[in-house]
Amino acid sequence: MEQATITIKGMTCEHCKAAVRTALLELDGVSAVEVHLDEGHADVTFDANKVPTSKLKEAVEEQGYDVV
Amino acid sequence: MEQATITIKGMTCEHCKAAVRTALLELDGVSAVEVHLDEGHADVTFDANKVPTSKLKEAVEEQGYDVV
Repeated sequence: MEQATITIKGMTCEHCKAAVRTALLELDGVSAVEVHLDEGHADVTFDANKVPTSKLKEAVEEQGYDVV
Repeated sequence: MEQATITIKGMTCEHCKAAVRTALLELDGVSAVEVHLDEGHADVTFDANKVPTSKLKEAVEEQGYDVV
């Protein structure tokens, strides 16, 4: 398992937080997600053999947010 | 059918807009809803015999927003 922190721009509310969290957790290989709305980032625990970091970023971007 | 404009504080994004819209449309007696995110209000078309204005406000507040 690996840990990554993804910096995310554009989250404004609890709905945004939930959308990002769900999108990441739905990825095969992601086992835990903590989204920090105020700080604008998500801490992700994942299996890098199953899901590359680029996929994590894509999942967040597909929800309409910018990954820095 | 009547028209009401509800002034809403706290909507920040498209998720908020959708949450307010859905909550209002789910009320029996509400036939149309236009939520204006930027202006912070919702235009509601409803049957006042079925649903009083107070219920419209309650539905919005239950989603976590302030009705002014």
